Amino acid sequence: MALDIKELSSNKSFGGYQKVFSHESAVTKCEMKFAVYLPPKAVDNSPCPVIYWLSGLTCNELNFIQKAGAQKISSELGVIIVCPDTSPRGCNIPGEDDGWDFGSGAGFYVDATEELWKNNYQMFSYVTAELPEVIKKNFPTNGKQSIMGHSMGGHGALICALRTPGFYSSVSAFAPICAPTECPWGLKAFNGYLGPDKTKWDEYDACKLVAKYSGPPLGIYVSQGESDQFLKDGQLQPEKLVDACTKACVPIILNRDQGYDHSYFYIASFVDDHIKHHAKFLKD
Amino acid sequence: MALDIKELSSNKSFGGYQKVFSHESAVTKCEMKFAVYLPPKAVDNSPCPVIYWLSGLTCNELNFIQKAGAQKISSELGVIIVCPDTSPRGCNIPGEDDGWDFGSGAGFYVDATEELWKNNYQMFSYVTAELPEVIKKNFPTNGKQSIMGHSMGGHGALICALRTPGFYSSVSAFAPICAPTECPWGLKAFNGYLGPDKTKWDEYDACKLVAKYSGPPLGIYVSQGESDQFLKDGQLQPEKLVDACTKACVPIILNRDQGYDHSYFYIASFVDDHIKHHAKFLKD
Repeated sequence: MALDIKELSSNKSFGGYQKVFSHESAVTKCEMKFAVYLPPKAVDNSPCPVIYWLSGLTCNELNFIQKAGAQKISSELGVIIVCPDTSPRGCNIPGEDDGWDFGSGAGFYVDATEELWKNNYQMFSYVTAELPEVIKKNFPTNGKQSIMGHSMGGHGALICALRTPGFYSSVSAFAPICAPTECPWGLKAFNGYLGPDKTKWDEYDACKLVAKYSGPPLGIYVSQGESDQFLKDGQLQPEKLVDACTKACVPIILNRDQGYDHSYFYIASFVDDHIKHHAKFLKD
Repeated sequence: MALDIKELSSNKSFGGYQKVFSHESAVTKCEMKFAVYLPPKAVDNSPCPVIYWLSGLTCNELNFIQKAGAQKISSELGVIIVCPDTSPRGCNIPGEDDGWDFGSGAGFYVDATEELWKNNYQMFSYVTAELPEVIKKNFPTNGKQSIMGHSMGGHGALICALRTPGFYSSVSAFAPICAPTECPWGLKAFNGYLGPDKTKWDEYDACKLVAKYSGPPLGIYVSQGESDQFLKDGQLQPEKLVDACTKACVPIILNRDQGYDHSYFYIASFVDDHIKHHAKFLKD
Protein backbone atom coordinates (compact mmCIF):
# COMPACT_ATOMS: atom_id res chain seq x y z
CA MET A 1 0.00 0.00 0.00
CA ALA A 2 1.44 3.38 -1.02
CA LEU A 3 1.21 5.74 1.93
CA ASP A 4 2.93 8.70 0.31
CA ILE A 5 1.01 11.96 0.17
CA LYS A 6 1.43 15.20 -1.76
CA GLU A 7 0.67 18.57 -0.13
CA LEU A 8 -1.63 20.68 -2.31
CA SER A 9 -2.13 23.64 0.06
CA SER A 10 -1.23 24.81 3.55
CA ASN A 11 -2.77 27.76 5.39
CA LYS A 12 -2.01 28.79 8.95
CA SER A 13 -5.23 28.69 10.97
CA PHE A 14 -5.72 29.32 14.69
CA GLY A 15 -2.06 28.67 15.39
CA GLY A 16 -2.10 25.36 13.51
CA TYR A 17 -2.30 24.50 9.83
CA GLN A 18 -5.18 23.67 7.52
CA LYS A 19 -3.73 21.50 4.77
CA VAL A 20 -5.00 19.61 1.73
CA PHE A 21 -3.27 16.55 0.31
CA SER A 22 -3.65 14.05 -2.51
CA HIS A 23 -2.47 10.47 -2.75
CA GLU A 24 -2.78 7.47 -5.01
CA SER A 25 -5.33 5.20 -3.38
CA ALA A 26 -4.77 1.47 -3.78
CA VAL A 27 -8.37 0.90 -2.67
CA THR A 28 -10.23 3.28 -5.00
CA LYS A 29 -7.56 2.99 -7.72
CA CYS A 30 -7.51 6.72 -8.36
CA GLU A 31 -6.06 9.89 -6.89
CA MET A 32 -7.93 10.87 -3.74
CA LYS A 33 -7.81 14.24 -1.98
CA PHE A 34 -8.27 14.85 1.72
CA ALA A 35 -7.97 17.80 4.09
CA VAL A 36 -6.19 17.73 7.46
CA TYR A 37 -6.35 20.32 10.23
CA LEU A 38 -3.25 20.10 12.42
CA PRO A 39 -3.67 21.84 15.78
CA PRO A 40 -0.62 23.56 17.32
CA LYS A 41 -0.02 20.45 19.44
CA ALA A 42 0.35 18.33 16.28
CA VAL A 43 2.54 20.97 14.65
CA ASP A 44 4.81 20.53 17.70
CA ASN A 45 4.81 16.81 16.85
CA SER A 46 2.93 15.70 19.99
CA PRO A 47 0.57 12.78 19.38
CA CYS A 48 -3.08 13.83 18.97
CA PRO A 49 -6.38 12.02 18.51
CA VAL A 50 -8.09 12.20 15.11
CA ILE A 51 -11.69 13.05 14.23
CA TYR A 52 -12.79 12.05 10.74
CA TRP A 53 -15.44 14.22 9.04
CA LEU A 54 -17.51 12.72 6.23
CA SER A 55 -19.30 15.24 4.02
CA GLY A 56 -22.64 14.97 2.26
CA LEU A 57 -23.89 14.74 -1.32
CA THR A 58 -22.14 17.03 -3.85
CA CYS A 59 -19.38 17.94 -1.38
CA ASN A 60 -15.67 17.31 -1.55
CA GLU A 61 -12.79 17.59 0.93
CA LEU A 62 -13.08 21.39 1.10
CA ASN A 63 -16.63 22.17 2.24
CA PHE A 64 -16.11 21.42 5.90
CA ILE A 65 -12.76 23.19 6.20
CA GLN A 66 -14.11 26.34 4.52
CA LYS A 67 -17.57 26.56 6.05
CA ALA A 68 -17.84 24.75 9.39
CA GLY A 69 -15.48 26.90 11.45
CA ALA A 70 -14.20 23.89 13.40
CA GLN A 71 -10.53 24.91 13.47
CA LYS A 72 -10.77 27.08 16.59
CA ILE A 73 -12.11 24.38 18.90
CA SER A 74 -9.82 21.77 17.28
CA SER A 75 -6.85 24.04 17.95
CA GLU A 76 -7.89 24.49 21.59
CA LEU A 77 -8.59 20.81 22.24
CA GLY A 78 -5.63 19.48 20.26
CA VAL A 79 -7.48 17.22 17.83
CA ILE A 80 -6.56 16.51 14.22
CA ILE A 81 -9.52 16.75 11.81
CA VAL A 82 -9.40 14.67 8.62
CA CYS A 83 -11.90 15.26 5.78
CA PRO A 84 -11.84 12.81 2.86
CA ASP A 85 -13.55 13.45 -0.45
CA THR A 86 -17.03 11.93 -0.83
CA SER A 87 -16.24 9.58 -3.73
CA PRO A 88 -13.61 8.52 -6.24
CA ARG A 89 -13.38 10.96 -9.14
CA GLY A 90 -12.29 10.91 -12.76
CA CYS A 91 -12.53 7.13 -13.10
CA ASN A 92 -14.09 7.22 -16.56
CA ILE A 93 -17.04 5.12 -15.48
CA PRO A 94 -20.00 5.68 -17.86
CA GLY A 95 -22.46 8.03 -16.14
CA GLU A 96 -20.23 8.83 -13.14
CA ASP A 97 -20.88 12.57 -13.49
CA ASP A 98 -24.53 12.41 -14.61
CA GLY A 99 -26.30 12.96 -11.26
CA TRP A 100 -25.70 14.88 -8.04
CA ASP A 101 -26.94 11.99 -5.89
CA PHE A 102 -25.05 9.08 -7.48
CA GLY A 103 -21.49 8.65 -8.74
CA SER A 104 -19.01 11.51 -8.28
CA GLY A 105 -19.63 13.33 -4.98
CA ALA A 106 -22.03 10.60 -3.85
CA GLY A 107 -20.04 7.49 -2.89
CA PHE A 108 -22.35 6.75 0.06
CA TYR A 109 -19.43 5.21 2.00
CA VAL A 110 -20.17 1.67 0.75
CA ASP A 111 -17.94 -0.92 -0.96
CA ALA A 112 -19.68 -1.29 -4.31
CA THR A 113 -20.28 -4.78 -5.66
CA GLU A 114 -21.89 -3.92 -8.98
CA GLU A 115 -19.62 -4.50 -11.98
CA LEU A 116 -19.40 -0.90 -13.19
CA TRP A 117 -18.54 0.57 -9.77
CA LYS A 118 -16.74 -2.10 -7.77
CA ASN A 119 -13.26 -1.35 -9.12
CA ASN A 120 -13.23 2.19 -7.70
CA TYR A 121 -16.20 2.86 -5.40
CA GLN A 122 -14.76 1.23 -2.26
CA MET A 123 -15.37 4.17 0.05
CA PHE A 124 -16.09 2.07 3.17
CA SER A 125 -12.69 0.38 2.95
CA TYR A 126 -11.05 3.64 1.99
CA VAL A 127 -12.43 5.56 4.99
CA THR A 128 -12.09 2.83 7.64
CA ALA A 129 -8.83 1.17 6.55
CA GLU A 130 -6.62 2.82 3.94
CA LEU A 131 -7.05 6.45 4.97
CA PRO A 132 -6.41 5.79 8.70
CA GLU A 133 -3.15 4.04 7.69
CA VAL A 134 -2.16 7.03 5.57
CA ILE A 135 -2.92 9.39 8.48
CA LYS A 136 -1.04 7.23 11.00
CA LYS A 137 2.01 7.10 8.74
CA ASN A 138 2.16 10.84 8.03
CA PHE A 139 0.91 12.66 11.14
CA PRO A 140 1.50 12.52 14.92
CA THR A 141 -1.54 10.48 16.01
CA ASN A 142 -2.08 8.81 19.38
CA GLY A 143 -4.07 5.82 18.10
CA LYS A 144 -7.49 7.16 19.10
CA GLN A 145 -10.09 8.29 16.60
CA SER A 146 -13.73 9.28 16.33
CA ILE A 147 -15.93 9.92 13.31
CA MET A 148 -18.64 12.38 12.39
CA GLY A 149 -20.45 13.56 9.28
CA HIS A 150 -23.36 15.36 7.65
CA SER A 151 -26.34 13.93 5.75
CA MET A 152 -24.88 11.20 3.49
CA GLY A 153 -21.72 11.63 5.58
CA GLY A 154 -23.74 11.27 8.79
CA HIS A 155 -24.94 7.94 7.45
CA GLY A 156 -21.31 7.18 6.61
CA ALA A 157 -20.08 8.01 10.10
CA LEU A 158 -22.76 5.84 11.71
CA ILE A 159 -22.13 2.78 9.54
CA CYS A 160 -18.34 3.10 9.79
CA ALA A 161 -18.57 3.15 13.60
CA LEU A 162 -21.21 0.42 13.85
CA ARG A 163 -19.33 -1.97 11.52
CA THR A 164 -15.92 -1.63 13.19
CA PRO A 165 -16.57 -2.10 16.94
CA GLY A 166 -13.83 -0.55 19.04
CA PHE A 167 -12.08 1.26 16.20
CA TYR A 168 -13.80 4.62 16.76
CA SER A 169 -14.15 5.97 20.30
CA SER A 170 -17.38 7.85 19.45
CA VAL A 171 -19.61 8.80 16.53
CA SER A 172 -21.74 11.83 15.79
CA ALA A 173 -23.79 13.17 12.90
CA PHE A 174 -25.63 16.21 11.64
CA ALA A 175 -28.88 15.36 9.86
CA PRO A 176 -27.78 11.83 8.95
CA ILE A 177 -29.57 9.58 6.46
CA CYS A 178 -30.53 7.11 9.19
CA ALA A 179 -32.38 4.48 7.17
CA PRO A 180 -30.92 4.46 3.64
CA THR A 181 -32.73 1.23 2.72
CA GLU A 182 -36.01 3.11 3.21
CA CYS A 183 -35.50 6.55 1.60
CA PRO A 184 -35.22 7.72 -2.03
CA TRP A 185 -31.53 8.72 -1.90
CA GLY A 186 -30.53 5.41 -0.31
CA LEU A 187 -32.66 3.26 -2.63
CA LYS A 188 -31.04 4.82 -5.70
CA ALA A 189 -27.50 4.57 -4.32
CA PHE A 190 -27.72 1.05 -2.88
CA ASN A 191 -29.42 -0.33 -5.97
CA GLY A 192 -26.71 1.25 -8.11
CA TYR A 193 -23.68 0.30 -6.03
CA LEU A 194 -24.85 -2.96 -4.40
CA GLY A 195 -27.37 -4.31 -6.88
CA PRO A 196 -30.96 -5.49 -6.39
CA ASP A 197 -30.25 -8.08 -3.62
CA LYS A 198 -31.52 -6.14 -0.62
CA THR A 199 -29.98 -8.49 1.95
CA LYS A 200 -26.62 -6.86 1.13
CA TRP A 201 -28.08 -3.40 1.77
CA ASP A 202 -28.65 -4.04 5.48
CA GLU A 203 -24.88 -4.05 6.04
CA TYR A 204 -24.90 -0.32 5.27
CA ASP A 205 -28.08 0.76 7.08
CA ALA A 206 -27.44 2.30 10.51
CA CYS A 207 -30.82 1.20 11.88
CA LYS A 208 -30.21 -2.42 10.87
CA LEU A 209 -26.62 -2.34 12.17
CA VAL A 210 -27.65 -0.90 15.55
CA ALA A 211 -30.03 -3.85 16.03
CA LYS A 212 -27.12 -6.30 16.07
CA TYR A 213 -24.37 -4.09 17.50
CA SER A 214 -22.50 -5.70 20.38
CA GLY A 215 -19.29 -3.66 20.65
CA PRO A 216 -18.19 -1.12 23.27
CA PRO A 217 -20.33 2.02 23.92
CA LEU A 218 -20.25 4.40 20.94
CA GLY A 219 -21.54 7.68 22.39
CA ILE A 220 -23.87 8.22 19.43
CA TYR A 221 -24.65 11.95 19.26
CA VAL A 222 -26.99 13.27 16.55
CA SER A 223 -28.17 16.79 15.72
CA GLN A 224 -31.18 17.38 13.52
CA GLY A 225 -32.57 20.75 12.45
CA GLU A 226 -36.35 20.92 12.70
CA SER A 227 -36.63 23.13 9.59
CA ASP A 228 -34.58 20.79 7.41
CA GLN A 229 -36.35 20.29 4.08
CA PHE A 230 -34.87 16.81 3.70
CA LEU A 231 -36.26 15.84 7.10
CA LYS A 232 -39.71 16.82 5.84
CA ASP A 233 -39.05 14.91 2.61
CA GLY A 234 -38.40 11.67 4.52
CA GLN A 235 -34.74 11.32 3.49
CA LEU A 236 -33.36 11.41 7.05
CA GLN A 237 -35.75 9.63 9.47
CA PRO A 238 -33.92 10.13 12.79
CA GLU A 239 -36.92 8.67 14.63
CA LYS A 240 -36.10 5.27 13.11
CA LEU A 241 -32.57 5.43 14.48
CA VAL A 242 -33.83 6.37 17.94
CA ASP A 243 -36.32 3.47 17.80
CA ALA A 244 -33.61 1.04 16.74
CA CYS A 245 -31.26 2.28 19.49
CA THR A 246 -34.00 2.01 22.09
CA LYS A 247 -34.84 -1.55 21.09
CA ALA A 248 -31.16 -2.55 21.10
CA CYS A 249 -30.41 -0.69 24.37
CA VAL A 250 -27.75 1.40 22.55
CA PRO A 251 -27.51 4.89 24.10
CA ILE A 252 -28.12 7.81 21.72
CA ILE A 253 -28.45 11.55 22.21
CA LEU A 254 -30.68 13.22 19.61
CA ASN A 255 -30.71 17.04 19.62
CA ARG A 256 -33.66 18.48 17.71
CA ASP A 257 -32.82 22.11 16.96
CA GLN A 258 -35.75 24.36 16.23
CA GLY A 259 -35.52 26.60 13.15
CA TYR A 260 -32.28 25.13 11.78
CA ASP A 261 -32.02 23.76 8.23
CA HIS A 262 -29.71 21.37 6.34
CA SER A 263 -26.97 23.93 5.57
CA TYR A 264 -23.46 24.50 6.83
CA PHE A 265 -24.85 27.45 8.82
CA TYR A 266 -26.46 24.78 11.01
CA ILE A 267 -23.29 22.70 11.23
CA ALA A 268 -21.22 25.76 12.17
CA SER A 269 -23.67 26.63 14.94
CA PHE A 270 -23.18 23.32 16.74
CA VAL A 271 -19.88 21.83 15.53
CA ASP A 272 -18.14 22.90 18.75
CA ASP A 273 -20.62 20.81 20.76
CA HIS A 274 -19.91 17.77 18.58
CA ILE A 275 -16.14 18.10 18.82
CA LYS A 276 -16.33 18.62 22.60
CA HIS A 277 -18.49 15.47 22.76
CA HIS A 278 -15.83 13.48 20.92
CA ALA A 279 -13.02 14.98 23.00
CA LYS A 280 -14.57 13.43 26.13
CA PHE A 281 -14.24 9.97 24.53
CA LEU A 282 -10.79 10.64 23.07
CA LYS A 283 -9.07 11.56 26.31
CA ASP A 284 -5.83 9.64 26.89
CA MET B 1 -34.67 56.41 -3.10
CA ALA B 2 -36.17 52.94 -3.18
CA LEU B 3 -35.44 51.25 0.12
CA ASP B 4 -37.34 48.03 -0.52
CA ILE B 5 -35.41 44.79 -0.31
CA LYS B 6 -36.07 41.23 -1.42
CA GLU B 7 -35.02 38.28 0.73
CA LEU B 8 -33.05 35.70 -1.29
CA SER B 9 -32.13 33.31 1.52
CA SER B 10 -32.42 32.89 5.26
CA ASN B 11 -30.55 30.37 7.42
CA LYS B 12 -30.71 30.12 11.19
CA SER B 13 -27.20 30.59 12.58
CA PHE B 14 -26.10 30.73 16.24
CA GLY B 15 -29.61 31.57 17.36
CA GLY B 16 -29.93 34.43 14.86
CA TYR B 17 -30.34 34.49 11.08
CA GLN B 18 -27.90 34.76 8.22
CA LYS B 19 -29.82 36.34 5.36
CA VAL B 20 -29.09 37.53 1.83
CA PHE B 21 -31.09 40.26 0.09
CA SER B 22 -31.22 42.09 -3.21
CA HIS B 23 -32.48 45.59 -3.99
CA GLU B 24 -32.58 48.04 -6.87
CA SER B 25 -29.85 50.55 -6.17
CA ALA B 26 -30.51 54.13 -7.26
CA VAL B 27 -26.80 54.85 -6.89
CA THR B 28 -25.31 52.01 -8.95
CA LYS B 29 -28.38 51.76 -11.19
CA CYS B 30 -28.47 47.98 -11.01
CA GLU B 31 -29.61 45.22 -8.70
CA MET B 32 -27.24 44.87 -5.76
CA LYS B 33 -27.02 41.96 -3.34
CA PHE B 34 -25.94 42.13 0.27
CA ALA B 35 -25.80 39.75 3.23
CA VAL B 36 -27.02 40.54 6.76
CA TYR B 37 -26.36 38.59 9.94
CA LEU B 38 -29.05 39.32 12.52
CA PRO B 39 -28.06 38.32 16.05
CA PRO B 40 -30.79 37.01 18.39
CA LYS B 41 -31.09 40.50 19.87
CA ALA B 42 -32.00 41.94 16.45
CA VAL B 43 -34.38 39.04 15.79
CA ASP B 44 -36.13 40.14 18.99
CA ASN B 45 -36.34 43.61 17.41
CA SER B 46 -34.00 45.31 19.89
CA PRO B 47 -31.82 48.02 18.30
CA CYS B 48 -28.27 46.82 17.54
CA PRO B 49 -25.11 48.44 16.17
CA VAL B 50 -23.97 47.52 12.67
CA ILE B 51 -20.56 46.43 11.40
CA TYR B 52 -20.05 46.66 7.65
CA TRP B 53 -17.70 44.14 6.05
CA LEU B 54 -16.14 44.97 2.67
CA SER B 55 -14.69 42.02 0.77
CA GLY B 56 -11.69 41.87 -1.52
CA LEU B 57 -11.05 41.32 -5.22
CA THR B 58 -13.15 38.59 -6.91
CA CYS B 59 -15.43 38.24 -3.88
CA ASN B 60 -19.14 38.90 -3.58
CA GLU B 61 -21.57 39.20 -0.65
CA LEU B 62 -21.18 35.51 0.26
CA ASN B 63 -17.47 34.90 0.94
CA PHE B 64 -17.42 36.43 4.41
CA ILE B 65 -20.63 34.82 5.61
CA GLN B 66 -19.54 31.37 4.44
CA LYS B 67 -15.86 31.41 5.38
CA ALA B 68 -15.08 33.87 8.18
CA GLY B 69 -17.02 32.24 11.01
CA ALA B 70 -18.04 35.62 12.46
CA GLN B 71 -21.62 34.71 13.34
CA LYS B 72 -20.84 33.23 16.76
CA ILE B 73 -19.19 36.34 18.21
CA SER B 74 -21.75 38.58 16.47
CA SER B 75 -24.53 36.56 18.09
CA GLU B 76 -22.92 36.85 21.51
CA LEU B 77 -22.17 40.59 21.26
CA GLY B 78 -25.44 41.51 19.56
CA VAL B 79 -24.05 43.18 16.44
CA ILE B 80 -25.56 43.14 12.96
CA ILE B 81 -23.03 42.34 10.20
CA VAL B 82 -23.72 43.72 6.71
CA CYS B 83 -21.71 42.50 3.69
CA PRO B 84 -22.28 44.29 0.38
CA ASP B 85 -21.12 42.95 -2.96
CA THR B 86 -17.77 44.29 -4.22
CA SER B 87 -19.06 46.00 -7.38
CA PRO B 88 -22.09 46.55 -9.58
CA ARG B 89 -22.75 43.57 -11.86
CA GLY B 90 -24.42 42.89 -15.17
CA CYS B 91 -24.32 46.53 -16.32
CA ASN B 92 -23.35 45.66 -19.89
CA ILE B 93 -20.27 47.88 -19.76
CA PRO B 94 -17.75 46.79 -22.42
CA GLY B 95 -14.99 44.80 -20.69
CA GLU B 96 -16.69 44.69 -17.27
CA ASP B 97 -16.05 40.95 -16.93
CA ASP B 98 -12.66 40.79 -18.64
CA GLY B 99 -10.36 40.93 -15.59
CA TRP B 100 -10.37 39.73 -12.00
CA ASP B 101 -8.83 42.98 -10.71
CA PHE B 102 -11.01 45.53 -12.56
CA GLY B 103 -14.74 45.75 -13.27
CA SER B 104 -17.05 43.10 -11.81
CA GLY B 105 -15.86 42.01 -8.37
CA ALA B 106 -13.36 44.86 -8.24
CA GLY B 107 -15.21 48.14 -7.65
CA PHE B 108 -12.46 49.44 -5.31
CA TYR B 109 -15.06 51.40 -3.31
CA VAL B 110 -14.59 54.59 -5.38
CA ASP B 111 -17.10 56.79 -7.19
CA ALA B 112 -15.95 56.43 -10.78
CA THR B 113 -15.64 59.57 -12.92
CA GLU B 114 -14.58 57.99 -16.21
CA GLU B 115 -17.31 57.98 -18.85
CA LEU B 116 -17.67 54.22 -19.22
CA TRP B 117 -17.93 53.51 -15.48
CA LYS B 118 -19.43 56.56 -13.81
CA ASN B 119 -23.05 55.61 -14.37
CA ASN B 120 -22.80 52.44 -12.26
CA TYR B 121 -19.49 52.23 -10.39
CA GLN B 122 -20.42 54.49 -7.47
CA MET B 123 -19.39 52.10 -4.73
CA PHE B 124 -18.21 54.78 -2.29
CA SER B 125 -21.62 56.45 -2.28
CA TYR B 126 -23.34 53.08 -2.26
CA VAL B 127 -21.47 51.82 0.81
CA THR B 128 -21.41 55.04 2.85
CA ALA B 129 -24.83 56.51 1.98
CA GLU B 130 -27.41 54.38 0.18
CA LEU B 131 -26.76 51.04 1.86
CA PRO B 132 -26.80 52.49 5.41
CA GLU B 133 -30.20 54.04 4.61
CA VAL B 134 -31.48 50.69 3.36
CA ILE B 135 -30.20 48.98 6.52
CA LYS B 136 -31.69 51.64 8.80
CA LYS B 137 -35.07 51.34 7.11
CA ASN B 138 -35.27 47.56 7.22
CA PHE B 139 -33.49 46.40 10.40
CA PRO B 140 -33.46 47.33 14.11
CA THR B 141 -30.33 49.52 14.24
CA ASN B 142 -29.25 51.83 17.05
CA GLY B 143 -27.56 54.45 14.86
CA LYS B 144 -24.01 53.30 15.54
CA GLN B 145 -21.83 51.62 12.94
CA SER B 146 -18.27 50.53 12.30
CA ILE B 147 -16.58 49.23 9.17
CA MET B 148 -14.02 46.56 8.35
CA GLY B 149 -12.73 44.73 5.31
CA HIS B 150 -10.10 42.58 3.63
CA SER B 151 -7.49 43.53 1.03
CA MET B 152 -9.34 45.76 -1.51
CA GLY B 153 -12.10 45.82 1.11
CA GLY B 154 -9.61 46.80 3.81
CA HIS B 155 -8.69 49.77 1.63
CA GLY B 156 -12.42 50.39 1.24
CA ALA B 157 -13.05 50.34 4.99
CA LEU B 158 -10.17 52.75 5.65
CA ILE B 159 -11.19 55.29 3.02
CA CYS B 160 -14.89 55.10 3.94
CA ALA B 161 -14.05 55.85 7.59
CA LEU B 162 -11.45 58.53 6.82
CA ARG B 163 -13.71 60.41 4.38
CA THR B 164 -16.79 60.48 6.63
CA PRO B 165 -15.56 61.74 10.03
CA GLY B 166 -17.89 60.71 12.83
CA PHE B 167 -20.04 58.37 10.76
CA TYR B 168 -18.22 55.17 11.71
CA SER B 169 -17.26 54.57 15.35
CA SER B 170 -14.19 52.51 14.41
CA VAL B 171 -12.45 50.92 11.43
CA SER B 172 -10.42 47.76 11.00
CA ALA B 173 -8.85 45.82 8.16
CA PHE B 174 -7.18 42.55 7.29
CA ALA B 175 -4.27 42.94 4.86
CA PRO B 176 -5.58 46.23 3.42
CA ILE B 177 -4.25 47.86 0.27
CA CYS B 178 -2.89 50.82 2.21
CA ALA B 179 -1.44 52.96 -0.60
CA PRO B 180 -3.47 52.27 -3.76
CA THR B 181 -1.87 55.19 -5.63
CA GLU B 182 1.46 53.39 -5.29
CA CYS B 183 0.74 49.70 -6.04
CA PRO B 184 -0.10 47.81 -9.25
CA TRP B 185 -3.70 46.93 -8.29
CA GLY B 186 -4.48 50.51 -7.31
CA LEU B 187 -2.81 52.09 -10.33
CA LYS B 188 -4.87 49.95 -12.71
CA ALA B 189 -8.13 50.54 -10.85
CA PHE B 190 -7.75 54.27 -10.23
CA ASN B 191 -6.59 54.95 -13.78
CA GLY B 192 -9.59 53.02 -15.08
CA TYR B 193 -12.26 54.43 -12.78
CA LEU B 194 -10.89 57.93 -12.08
CA GLY B 195 -8.83 58.70 -15.18
CA PRO B 196 -5.24 59.89 -15.52
CA ASP B 197 -5.53 63.01 -13.28
CA LYS B 198 -3.76 61.73 -10.19
CA THR B 199 -4.90 64.58 -7.94
CA LYS B 200 -8.31 62.87 -7.84
CA TRP B 201 -6.70 59.61 -6.75
CA ASP B 202 -5.55 61.00 -3.41
CA GLU B 203 -9.16 61.19 -2.24
CA TYR B 204 -9.22 57.38 -2.20
CA ASP B 205 -5.76 56.66 -0.75
CA ALA B 206 -5.81 55.87 2.98
CA CYS B 207 -2.26 57.16 3.51
CA LYS B 208 -3.11 60.50 1.89
CA LEU B 209 -6.42 60.77 3.74
CA VAL B 210 -4.84 60.05 7.12
CA ALA B 211 -2.47 62.98 6.60
CA LYS B 212 -5.37 65.43 6.57
CA TYR B 213 -7.82 63.62 8.89
CA SER B 214 -9.22 65.82 11.62
CA GLY B 215 -12.30 63.93 12.82
CA PRO B 216 -12.90 62.04 16.07
CA PRO B 217 -10.64 59.07 17.00
CA LEU B 218 -11.17 56.11 14.65
CA GLY B 219 -9.62 53.21 16.52
CA ILE B 220 -7.79 52.01 13.41
CA TYR B 221 -6.97 48.32 13.88
CA VAL B 222 -5.09 46.43 11.17
CA SER B 223 -4.01 42.79 10.93
CA GLN B 224 -1.39 41.69 8.43
CA GLY B 225 -0.14 38.14 7.90
CA GLU B 226 3.64 37.96 7.55
CA SER B 227 3.45 35.15 4.97
CA ASP B 228 1.02 37.02 2.71
CA GLN B 229 2.22 36.76 -0.89
CA PHE B 230 0.64 40.12 -1.74
CA LEU B 231 2.57 41.76 1.10
CA LYS B 232 5.77 40.49 -0.48
CA ASP B 233 4.56 41.67 -3.90
CA GLY B 234 4.18 45.25 -2.62
CA GLN B 235 0.40 45.45 -3.09
CA LEU B 236 -0.40 46.13 0.59
CA GLN B 237 2.34 48.33 2.15
CA PRO B 238 1.08 48.56 5.75
CA GLU B 239 4.33 50.33 6.75
CA LYS B 240 3.21 53.35 4.70
CA LEU B 241 -0.06 53.54 6.63
CA VAL B 242 1.75 53.32 9.96
CA ASP B 243 4.14 56.07 8.82
CA ALA B 244 1.26 58.29 7.72
CA CYS B 245 -0.59 57.70 11.00
CA THR B 246 2.53 58.43 13.02
CA LYS B 247 3.14 61.70 11.17
CA ALA B 248 -0.50 62.75 11.57
CA CYS B 249 -0.70 61.60 15.22
CA VAL B 250 -3.58 59.27 14.32
CA PRO B 251 -3.53 56.19 16.61
CA ILE B 252 -3.24 52.85 14.83
CA ILE B 253 -2.76 49.29 16.03
CA LEU B 254 -0.97 47.05 13.51
CA ASN B 255 -0.87 43.33 14.31
CA ARG B 256 1.74 41.45 12.29
CA ASP B 257 0.88 37.76 12.49
CA GLN B 258 3.68 35.36 11.77
CA GLY B 259 2.99 32.53 9.31
CA TYR B 260 -0.45 33.73 8.20
CA ASP B 261 -1.31 34.34 4.55
CA HIS B 262 -3.94 36.32 2.59
CA SER B 263 -6.71 33.72 2.84
CA TYR B 264 -9.97 33.49 4.75
CA PHE B 265 -8.21 31.00 7.05
CA TYR B 266 -6.31 34.03 8.34
CA ILE B 267 -9.44 36.17 8.63
CA ALA B 268 -11.29 33.41 10.51
CA SER B 269 -8.38 33.09 12.98
CA PHE B 270 -8.64 36.72 14.10
CA VAL B 271 -12.11 37.97 13.16
CA ASP B 272 -13.30 37.64 16.76
CA ASP B 273 -10.56 40.05 17.87
CA HIS B 274 -11.66 42.58 15.24
CA ILE B 275 -15.33 42.37 16.16
CA LYS B 276 -14.52 42.66 19.87
CA HIS B 277 -12.43 45.73 19.03
CA HIS B 278 -15.38 47.34 17.25
CA ALA B 279 -17.78 46.36 20.04
CA LYS B 280 -15.78 48.51 22.47
CA PHE B 281 -16.42 51.56 20.26
CA LEU B 282 -20.03 50.65 19.55
CA LYS B 283 -21.18 50.45 23.16
CA ASP B 284 -24.30 52.50 23.87
